[in-house]
Amino acid sequence: MPKRVIFHELKTPEEALAVISGFIKRSEVEYVNLEDSYMRVLAEDVYAKVDVPPFDRATMDGYALRAEDTFGADELHPVKLRLSNLSINAGDSNLPLVEKGSAVEIATGAPLPPGSNAVVPVEYTKVDDGTLTIYRSVTPMDNVMSAGSDIMMGELILRRCTLIKEREVGVLAAVGIDKVPVFKRPRVAIISSGNELVKPGSLLSMGKIYDINTYTIAHGVREAGGEPLLMGIVKDDEAEMEGIIRDALSKADLVLLSGGTSAGALDISYRVLDRIGPPGVIVHGLNVKPGKPTVVAVSKEGKLVVGLPGYPSSALMIFNIIVKPILAKMQCLSLTQPVIRAQMAIRVEGARGRRGLNPVSLVETESGVKAYPLPAESGAITTLAYAEGYIEIPENREFLEEGEWVNVRLFTHQYKPANLYIMGSHDVALDSSLIPLLPDWITAKVINIGSLEGLKAAIRGEADVAGIHLIDEETGEYNEPFVRKYGEGKVRLVAGYMREQGIILPKGNPRGISSFEDLIRLKLRIVNRNKGAGTRFLFDKLLKEYALRNGVSFEELAKSIPGYYHEARTHTAVAAAIAQGRAEAGVGIRAAAEMYGLDFIPLAWERYDFAVPLSKLSKDSVRVFISVLKDEEFKRRLSSIPGYKTLSNTGEFII
Amino acid sequence: MPKRVIFHELKTPEEALAVISGFIKRSEVEYVNLEDSYMRVLAEDVYAKVDVPPFDRATMDGYALRAEDTFGADELHPVKLRLSNLSINAGDSNLPLVEKGSAVEIATGAPLPPGSNAVVPVEYTKVDDGTLTIYRSVTPMDNVMSAGSDIMMGELILRRCTLIKEREVGVLAAVGIDKVPVFKRPRVAIISSGNELVKPGSLLSMGKIYDINTYTIAHGVREAGGEPLLMGIVKDDEAEMEGIIRDALSKADLVLLSGGTSAGALDISYRVLDRIGPPGVIVHGLNVKPGKPTVVAVSKEGKLVVGLPGYPSSALMIFNIIVKPILAKMQCLSLTQPVIRAQMAIRVEGARGRRGLNPVSLVETESGVKAYPLPAESGAITTLAYAEGYIEIPENREFLEEGEWVNVRLFTHQYKPANLYIMGSHDVALDSSLIPLLPDWITAKVINIGSLEGLKAAIRGEADVAGIHLIDEETGEYNEPFVRKYGEGKVRLVAGYMREQGIILPKGNPRGISSFEDLIRLKLRIVNRNKGAGTRFLFDKLLKEYALRNGVSFEELAKSIPGYYHEARTHTAVAAAIAQGRAEAGVGIRAAAEMYGLDFIPLAWERYDFAVPLSKLSKDSVRVFISVLKDEEFKRRLSSIPGYKTLSNTGEFII
Repeated sequence: MPKRVIFHELKTPEEALAVISGFIKRSEVEYVNLEDSYMRVLAEDVYAKVDVPPFDRATMDGYALRAEDTFGADELHPVKLRLSNLSINAGDSNLPLVEKGSAVEIATGAPLPPGSNAVVPVEYTKVDDGTLTIYRSVTPMDNVMSAGSDIMMGELILRRCTLIKEREVGVLAAVGIDKVPVFKRPRVAIISSGNELVKPGSLLSMGKIYDINTYTIAHGVREAGGEPLLMGIVKDDEAEMEGIIRDALSKADLVLLSGGTSAGALDISYRVLDRIGPPGVIVHGLNVKPGKPTVVAVSKEGKLVVGLPGYPSSALMIFNIIVKPILAKMQCLSLTQPVIRAQMAIRVEGARGRRGLNPVSLVETESGVKAYPLPAESGAITTLAYAEGYIEIPENREFLEEGEWVNVRLFTHQYKPANLYIMGSHDVALDSSLIPLLPDWITAKVINIGSLEGLKAAIRGEADVAGIHLIDEETGEYNEPFVRKYGEGKVRLVAGYMREQGIILPKGNPRGISSFEDLIRLKLRIVNRNKGAGTRFLFDKLLKEYALRNGVSFEELAKSIPGYYHEARTHTAVAAAIAQGRAEAGVGIRAAAEMYGLDFIPLAWERYDFAVPLSKLSKDSVRVFISVLKDEEFKRRLSSIPGYKTLSNTGEFII
Repeated sequence: MPKRVIFHELKTPEEALAVISGFIKRSEVEYVNLEDSYMRVLAEDVYAKVDVPPFDRATMDGYALRAEDTFGADELHPVKLRLSNLSINAGDSNLPLVEKGSAVEIATGAPLPPGSNAVVPVEYTKVDDGTLTIYRSVTPMDNVMSAGSDIMMGELILRRCTLIKEREVGVLAAVGIDKVPVFKRPRVAIISSGNELVKPGSLLSMGKIYDINTYTIAHGVREAGGEPLLMGIVKDDEAEMEGIIRDALSKADLVLLSGGTSAGALDISYRVLDRIGPPGVIVHGLNVKPGKPTVVAVSKEGKLVVGLPGYPSSALMIFNIIVKPILAKMQCLSLTQPVIRAQMAIRVEGARGRRGLNPVSLVETESGVKAYPLPAESGAITTLAYAEGYIEIPENREFLEEGEWVNVRLFTHQYKPANLYIMGSHDVALDSSLIPLLPDWITAKVINIGSLEGLKAAIRGEADVAGIHLIDEETGEYNEPFVRKYGEGKVRLVAGYMREQGIILPKGNPRGISSFEDLIRLKLRIVNRNKGAGTRFLFDKLLKEYALRNGVSFEELAKSIPGYYHEARTHTAVAAAIAQGRAEAGVGIRAAAEMYGLDFIPLAWERYDFAVPLSKLSKDSVRVFISVLKDEEFKRRLSSIPGYKTLSNTGEFII
């Protein structure tokens, strides 16, 4: 086995960028048409070659004349001038001479004719048969914009390295520039490596997953002004990888490789990156977490190659920290990292001597924006879905406290907070029938954290709406006891709908189960729900009753059930595990069983309601959400889902 | 003459949008490749069709085994298992069965083989000749990410109307989507009307100006997700305009017309827009200032046509207020208007019963962001150059006070404040020699407001650097007396360089001028500089001396000079006016005269220095600015400009 790479020269991102900086080459210059200059970067200082306006220009509709002819004119002592039968419009070039004692009609934007030196606005005049009566005097240059008074020939109007957007293109147009010198967009080759990767759109065989980084990185490259060049997926094979990297180097200005996650895959890419030099590898790992195995190399032609971590959210963080600054410098862009100030919603641990890069999800509350840390190294794609950005935890901090203010570095500009946070228990009807009926201006963020955590988030005012189905073990009553106990005076409860819970079994029920007792007795391998999930409460309640009946302890009973500690986060996950043979049974809603064509033994109907913080009742999106619950179309959709039914008071306040 | 349009049904922007809203059609749906989905808007709710991960996946490099085989293992009581000679890598699909008492090597990302239910990380093991020694026990599913635990089959992963950027494309890739349903980009036809307009790049003949709105609007359309279709320039001719609008309607989803500024041009476009109906014109003017003559019409095919004001900054404001919301709705985008809070730097007047839309320039000061109002209806293109956005002054406010907090609506996302504000007197060397030597990370904003206003801005801490050349009439001394008098303890003065001032005359000096006296005596038509300009101080000083010598009052003398009240803002403007025959003489620096090949009679050398607020001395960009003054390359460049010379102490503090 070849020697493993040991990263013992870890650099901070700043140290790494300092080293990289010497190898960054400024993009070449190209000329683009003015209309194609959107979001391009000016490559030269631009000086005006003409005056703006290029002539003395009327700024009002009125009459061009000599100011001195109007001196003394007012309402009581109007002045009369000979009116020419000509009129001057914007764009006219054949201009009459205005003689003393005469005037000529002129439109806004038209050039001031020779002899005249001012314009009297039309509202202070009257025209009678070739005579102009003037009721207000003007001084020289009144209502005239003089040539060059806006932009002067020779003036520096835009500096190189300016990003061209609406305003900048206007200034270029004003001075007549039609070919704009801009920096070429850097071509950035993107390679994803890993034997397990397949292209989205293809079928997944066993052991394979879809390639994600090619696409997140390509979009990131576009966001940073580059032109992505998708090289595809390469196997963890040294020769193959070297081939594709050399091909990429011949086509692109910068090569990005997002790597395998295993030590073996890292070894391969490290050796290849060192071989493209000299100089080869110039950054041997970063002292950040995640992102330690980040490698930066320089080819013998002097092109940079960056090896990014394999997990999508980690790859995106290192892209932000290392690659965006490279792309910015190539194009002479001084990128601003979009940052939002937020308070940590809960305490988060540091990375013990390394700089922690922790993805966070942002929630807007009454008391400001809260940042929820997400698992940094899990490789979960939901991290991407939920994380608006990441925080940096300094090397010397063991943890950041709950409530501590942090800078959240956003993954993209244009962070738009959701205006409806739905947290709590995952529900099929919510996904398929309610949310699609919300008007488009509502941007909902659905975070499936289970009933109990959802209720807590509502009590803290972080959830706008929390879908809950919590059974009180003593009374068998749903939701109300929990809201009264924990949320009195803080949240209200809106009646939701009924869902049928039951045992989900493989199609055809091969083990011949007919009751909950059978499930336990036959020691079927189950898939459980996560703690805090309403269905978990139900399952544990049934288990406790079984334990009581059979004279065993609940704990021992639980331990004896294969898969009891195998937790799935949603109903469909339970169904999927059974459909794919990973488990033989589970408890969940009928709708999930039907989705996967599985067998279902009903256990109980449960109430799924919505807890809403008092402070959010007047929020538009919340009011609309509640009104959709009462909507006939929603009720119709809901009733068509197997195992769902509405209540007589669906959408009304219970508490 | 046809009846003039009277706008007597003015609507607020909100009322106008309510009327328009009923005519907006949602864009059609098209499918794009995943890699082409950047900044597109999802047209359908997307549900996961696969689980993520699709199988139980190892999250560490280590050994797959049965957790129960490790129970009780620790450093003192290691467990030994038979080690298979196979190993499972990421992407492997042919998986060995792991039997009781055995283990198999597994890499991060690889599928858990049948029979095993956990992974022991490599660091807690030792391998010896086919035997694995394990020093730590694991429980089932330890170091395994279970199938579907990240995203479940059937889960709603992205809602329609979501803008696709890095994170969203990652979620789509994760579930294997390669064709993405998105709303088609609205095709937006852009027409500029006006007899005076010519395309940038062509030659300007008398009376003509360059078309600006086509380009600012086109870039605005791209920013709002549309696809601009440049229709070009149309004359203020009813038949021609109707033809191009009907052509545009046949090609585009939305038509934008930016109109002539004269009443006559407005009449024409109004009549044409009414004729494309029914319904024809649906919004007859807005009660905003500027932007009153905004017209919105609907063609008989049901397409919207918006007639925007002619002045570029006005057109861009109305584009933001009216057109962006239309484009957003067509694509189901809930656009966030980027807004910055700022304080009014000076008082600004309202629009008396209309809503004032006032472009503002933003300056970052120690005490926060200040908004400088710019002339709203001037038609100046510098308004575009300086205005980062605009404020709305409510209908019922006569004015907004200095210091009042306002919301500045930015023209574009990604507002990046300049990090070096250079205010004060316009200087050729500053433009051509100093600023180009600043490193690219310095984003300079040069605002030519004259020496005195520049000094004041430095004293208020709004300018980082103010270029000044102010002569003390009593002592003839430059700059220092002014800084001592007004800025003691607030600003310091950095020595700049010398500039040669003189009389600028047409090439060949046709009137045979040889002195300042000749200029006055021969009553040459002059072009003056604005009040507060150092050159104006010099001119007035010379004029006062002349008046004293000749026994006339300064005021009378000034009045008798043709063009005395014709003010130009920069030296090059003075030279341009003379070169183009609009004036016969002016006072300015030699460099400007040389730029235009004009004659020059030296009057004096003056000092051009830089006032810097004490509070800005430690600012990086300011320190670099001062260091560039001392740079040899700068001194070399400066000395090569006619009429410039450096001082022995250039770049050093005088005060």
